[in-house]
Amino acid sequence: MALYVQKYGGTSVGSVERIQQVADKVKSFRDQGHYIVVVVSAMSGETNRLIGMANEMQDKPSPREMDVLVSTGEQVTIALLCMALTARECPARSYTGGQVKIHTDSSHTKARIQNIDVDNMRNDLDKGRVVVVAGFQGVDDNGNITTLGRGGSDTTGVALAAALKADECQIYTDVDGVYTTDPRVVDNAQRLKEITFEEMLEMASLGSKVLQIRAVEFAGKYGVPLRVLHSFKEGPGTLITIESENTMEQPIISGIAFNRDEAKLTITGVPDVPGVASKILCPISDANVEVDMILQNVSAEGLTDFTFTVHRNDYGLALDTLKHVAVNLNATGAIGSDNIAKVSIVGVGMRSHAGVASRMFDSLAKENINIQMISTSEIKVSVVIDEKYLELAVRALHSTFEMDKPQTVEE
Amino acid sequence: MALYVQKYGGTSVGSVERIQQVADKVKSFRDQGHYIVVVVSAMSGETNRLIGMANEMQDKPSPREMDVLVSTGEQVTIALLCMALTARECPARSYTGGQVKIHTDSSHTKARIQNIDVDNMRNDLDKGRVVVVAGFQGVDDNGNITTLGRGGSDTTGVALAAALKADECQIYTDVDGVYTTDPRVVDNAQRLKEITFEEMLEMASLGSKVLQIRAVEFAGKYGVPLRVLHSFKEGPGTLITIESENTMEQPIISGIAFNRDEAKLTITGVPDVPGVASKILCPISDANVEVDMILQNVSAEGLTDFTFTVHRNDYGLALDTLKHVAVNLNATGAIGSDNIAKVSIVGVGMRSHAGVASRMFDSLAKENINIQMISTSEIKVSVVIDEKYLELAVRALHSTFEMDKPQTVEE
Repeated sequence: MALYVQKYGGTSVGSVERIQQVADKVKSFRDQGHYIVVVVSAMSGETNRLIGMANEMQDKPSPREMDVLVSTGEQVTIALLCMALTARECPARSYTGGQVKIHTDSSHTKARIQNIDVDNMRNDLDKGRVVVVAGFQGVDDNGNITTLGRGGSDTTGVALAAALKADECQIYTDVDGVYTTDPRVVDNAQRLKEITFEEMLEMASLGSKVLQIRAVEFAGKYGVPLRVLHSFKEGPGTLITIESENTMEQPIISGIAFNRDEAKLTITGVPDVPGVASKILCPISDANVEVDMILQNVSAEGLTDFTFTVHRNDYGLALDTLKHVAVNLNATGAIGSDNIAKVSIVGVGMRSHAGVASRMFDSLAKENINIQMISTSEIKVSVVIDEKYLELAVRALHSTFEMDKPQTVEE
Repeated sequence: MALYVQKYGGTSVGSVERIQQVADKVKSFRDQGHYIVVVVSAMSGETNRLIGMANEMQDKPSPREMDVLVSTGEQVTIALLCMALTARECPARSYTGGQVKIHTDSSHTKARIQNIDVDNMRNDLDKGRVVVVAGFQGVDDNGNITTLGRGGSDTTGVALAAALKADECQIYTDVDGVYTTDPRVVDNAQRLKEITFEEMLEMASLGSKVLQIRAVEFAGKYGVPLRVLHSFKEGPGTLITIESENTMEQPIISGIAFNRDEAKLTITGVPDVPGVASKILCPISDANVEVDMILQNVSAEGLTDFTFTVHRNDYGLALDTLKHVAVNLNATGAIGSDNIAKVSIVGVGMRSHAGVASRMFDSLAKENINIQMISTSEIKVSVVIDEKYLELAVRALHSTFEMDKPQTVEE
């Protein structure tokens, strides 16, 4: 008898038939005696349909009214799922975010959860009902409908699990778990049985987008065990949890993330004086361009090179901006490249194993892949390489760190 | 400077373009300095789409969940209309039924309004905002979403007008007012400038379905002036109001209603003893058939004939039931006809004018139309005739009561 919060995304509830399949699945869990709270998204396509109409109404639709509009998407799903459950003689009760209540601040379209009333849900669970909650939405102190921003249903699931002290928050998706790397690149990529919150955050932000980063952060903060599973295939999925105390059993590297969405810019021959970094980066940020990796080389003869990466879509804008900066700072030039890729190895095992980075560099050198940038954190090493070597690099690293073997951690 | 509650139905907000037209219209009223509260329905087709999905989920969908589902329809419209208004630099704020709050009982799918909080709306109006409210929906004491049943948006409009003590509740539709009779039958049918609540109720229940009966009753009860207008054509429409004190200016007959949806049944030679009427009608009502007109002839030799009308769809069921009743009561027989029509003249002027009924019968006699049944109330006379004479009868009466002339009441 466990309490599970199960979140089903837009694709999992994308049609009448899919919602019925979800109802079958939820009922089977309840029939095993578990307490179930279900969080659902809008049926896939619905949110975009609504946003499309909004954009026809107003250039920049009012955020308050946008929330009133798009929150109807999940409201439709909760009602339909409850009907499907009731039709299966599984008592169920739906709640909008405002009905739960999920209290948020008043930042429409990107509100943050402040607290959650659990009394109604507990009361329903005690009566044997499945509780079905609209994801992605809440209510502010003045009764205004708010939304948490796209993908916010994962956050709702985790927040409910934390508030209800659930045994597990299960995120049902269209993948059967988190893999050592993208199976489209490496044939024998392995499903991970477990991964830590920190590793998951590094994997997610590096481009392995299975879960919303915000939900993982939230789960980590409140210690909510999070499991990624496939909505319609059986299997244990991947458990995202706190770091195991027995790190001996942890693999050194859990996964390899990669990202083709970046571009690299360098301003060369900048006078190396205090404050120069902010003089370079402030105009970039003023142009609304987000910066990812930042490297500054050791100064030579009072001049330094300064390199950073941005999203590839922002490359042109960033380069134009940087050229102006170069003139203003009397730098020798501004150059860049948008045919780069970032490859990262991620693993908490790095903490207790020396030489991980050099094994990575060695592996790439053997394949004659030149490393253009390096950046490291406690549990990851990222390199920027020429985009054309991306697949080769990922496969080489996957093999070097022996990630091809099925994991031995107990299910 | 007046306070108007304006209600726009599903067809009036049936597309993005239509909603934009409504926004233009609402803004023009506000620009004249009026305070405006708008009540909207779901975009036409949306409620049926939602109900269709519900029926796929469950044979008889849970009423509570049905309300959660269909109430999203109006919620979409309020948000879109507010965006369209804001885009026109007309400040606006949307409210769901639960946000207003419109308090109802807990009879899901057919809830009744208990009271309405006006503070938020007043506050918005004072700030120069147009208030946009979702029709058809409310909230019960436990925070459950309720709906008022189909057509309930008219009721919402009237209830808000009553609560806010509005100067007028304007119902925008796809007709430009209430006519003396159906213009498809009588070419020179005239738009009425005014009609009383009582007349409107008789007209509506007799088949001239412009407004929901419930909304008219509600408006009459609280003395809310109600005006029916065309959503997209200019014109004063028809004002539905309390009876003018100067009845001299009232036309004798305001309108002619008719109805082809009925069938007539007669049980003949029934022993005329106390309680026989209920012995006849109880089995009919037990079969879930609603009865409209009821006539009992004077008894001859202790036997009487008993005639009533039912909806034509129920004719077969009612006749079968009546045949059993006839056997049980030792009546001589049960007969009926489903090719009848009901024609009614309606007008508060009848009260002060004698001989209205005989003028009606005389007019029909001149056309050789046989009257099969007669029923009267204080402000109407209804006759049942052979269906094939319907158009002839309506035209004759329209001319007899001089309804072909444009009305002279001041606009």
